[in-house]
Amino acid sequence: MKNRQVRLAARPVGLPKPGDWQFTDEAVADPGVGQILVEVSYLSLDPAMRGWMNEGKSYIRPVAIGEVMRAGGAGKVVKSSHPKFAVGDVVTGGFGVQQYALSDGKGVVKVDTRLVPLPVYLGTLGMPGMTAYFGLLEIGKPKAGETVVVSGAAGAVGTVVGQIAKIKGCRVVGIAGGAEKCRYLVDELGFDAAIDYKGEDVRKGLKEHCPKGIDVYFDNVGGEILDACLARLAMHARIVICGAISQYNSTEGMKGPANYMSLLVNRASMTGMVVFDYAERYGEAAREMAGWIQAGRLKTKEDVVEGGIDAFPDTLLKLFRGENFGKLVLKVAT
Amino acid sequence: MKNRQVRLAARPVGLPKPGDWQFTDEAVADPGVGQILVEVSYLSLDPAMRGWMNEGKSYIRPVAIGEVMRAGGAGKVVKSSHPKFAVGDVVTGGFGVQQYALSDGKGVVKVDTRLVPLPVYLGTLGMPGMTAYFGLLEIGKPKAGETVVVSGAAGAVGTVVGQIAKIKGCRVVGIAGGAEKCRYLVDELGFDAAIDYKGEDVRKGLKEHCPKGIDVYFDNVGGEILDACLARLAMHARIVICGAISQYNSTEGMKGPANYMSLLVNRASMTGMVVFDYAERYGEAAREMAGWIQAGRLKTKEDVVEGGIDAFPDTLLKLFRGENFGKLVLKVAT
Repeated sequence: MKNRQVRLAARPVGLPKPGDWQFTDEAVADPGVGQILVEVSYLSLDPAMRGWMNEGKSYIRPVAIGEVMRAGGAGKVVKSSHPKFAVGDVVTGGFGVQQYALSDGKGVVKVDTRLVPLPVYLGTLGMPGMTAYFGLLEIGKPKAGETVVVSGAAGAVGTVVGQIAKIKGCRVVGIAGGAEKCRYLVDELGFDAAIDYKGEDVRKGLKEHCPKGIDVYFDNVGGEILDACLARLAMHARIVICGAISQYNSTEGMKGPANYMSLLVNRASMTGMVVFDYAERYGEAAREMAGWIQAGRLKTKEDVVEGGIDAFPDTLLKLFRGENFGKLVLKVAT
Repeated sequence: MKNRQVRLAARPVGLPKPGDWQFTDEAVADPGVGQILVEVSYLSLDPAMRGWMNEGKSYIRPVAIGEVMRAGGAGKVVKSSHPKFAVGDVVTGGFGVQQYALSDGKGVVKVDTRLVPLPVYLGTLGMPGMTAYFGLLEIGKPKAGETVVVSGAAGAVGTVVGQIAKIKGCRVVGIAGGAEKCRYLVDELGFDAAIDYKGEDVRKGLKEHCPKGIDVYFDNVGGEILDACLARLAMHARIVICGAISQYNSTEGMKGPANYMSLLVNRASMTGMVVFDYAERYGEAAREMAGWIQAGRLKTKEDVVEGGIDAFPDTLLKLFRGENFGKLVLKVAT
């Protein structure tokens, strides 16, 4: 029995290339005392992964050259020497891009697939859902009647941000790439409007759909869309800085938001958030969101790629091309 | 008796040129019922003036072409048909760049020059002081022991920000242009350190003088210094966006802060402020700051240019060349 792994071979310049990865096949290890062995079923693919591949100080240490690429995953416990986990338990955790993971159980959570399918625990009930929940509610602090705009709106975080904002009584405008995604946001998820940044003038769209300005902007993309939203802020607006996917693969350095003085004009704020800070409250958020799912108020969408672990490098690129629709996961176990 | 006025003749591109101004000489008007006539003694010169000369939506309407340039001033009531003002009252208000101003008394405040010299009411006890007080305390919220960095530190706002931060028990680092200003900040105003952006590497200086990172950054300048400070934030840092003087005369558009994702890494915020929002509390702030001045805890510095009203266009440029040292005022009445 072999464990196929994807390791970081080089720090990418721009979009990750095939040569930035190295595949290794190791013997599957046996868990020591206090450890479990997990067979990974699904891997979570997240925009943040691109940042983890860079050198330099960030909110988490970079993946080292030669190290198995960091990734969240979901799978089954196949061996256990840990008192809290039994063979057959279905779990999520930071398993890395590999078929089998040894773990001491830290950060590993048992999940119940009778409630929702396993990939949902990597999306709406996983990190992206937690990011949406705490970023919107704790930083954005939307009030009923306010206008909330979210970019990357058809992605794992954006779909949840918009739906929670609707639950909270807000007017919700999503920005996404392509007419199909935009239709989905409005017709299926109940957004008030959606702007197709690939086919429409975002500034015009914001003017039309946010007649009173933007009270909360949840930014997943940075770049020109952030600037367009800055230009349309309402007084005392709050911008949640969650990501900047449009900039992650830039080879010319980050583009800063040229319109940031709109923060002054509108007495607005721009605040960064990292979901890990809310770890102690994940349970509370998951319970509330599971309730919304069961009540039909929060829909989940997963984009499951059936490629096995060898498809990891290509699948990751879907994120940066804006090709994923909902939470992107890679099915690893056949 | 003539009233010489400086009017906006054209919207400047880059630094205001002589041709962007027009001088007019009008007969001095008589106050109607409810009005006063003020002879202006000092004019306040502020970086914000550059923004008022541009077209476009901002926190205040632009000065119209042909209109007397907006300016704060201090002077004497020389005629009064207003119940609350008597001839001889010394007042401050938005009098515009002219020798005599008619006013209905709105925003006009009587001041007492036995306490401090008149120009101080345009600086530490005027808009710049209010900006420093409310921006630092209400947005920056510094706690004793924290590190506060202020740019434009030897200017009207910066000198006050740094001294209030010292009063609140913070470590204070100023960024200013030139060794003389830097010496003044440390030796006279009690800053813990000062960085000369014209002669030193700001990043290196911040690393040396902010070993635990920056908890509060009060930004008057934008541009590269804002980026350098973003790169040195402590966790949960607060950036107060008060101005961006390095960018006001750019002909290539604003430069956005490329390092803004440091807000995410450090769970930090960047918030804009406009002093007018605190108008109801100016009295409270002025009383507290006057007390600090009398106790010798808050020093004021005014840069008084003796040029008469004709010197207005040239004197304004001192701000954008970083040549002023303390609050820049133009003496108008001879």
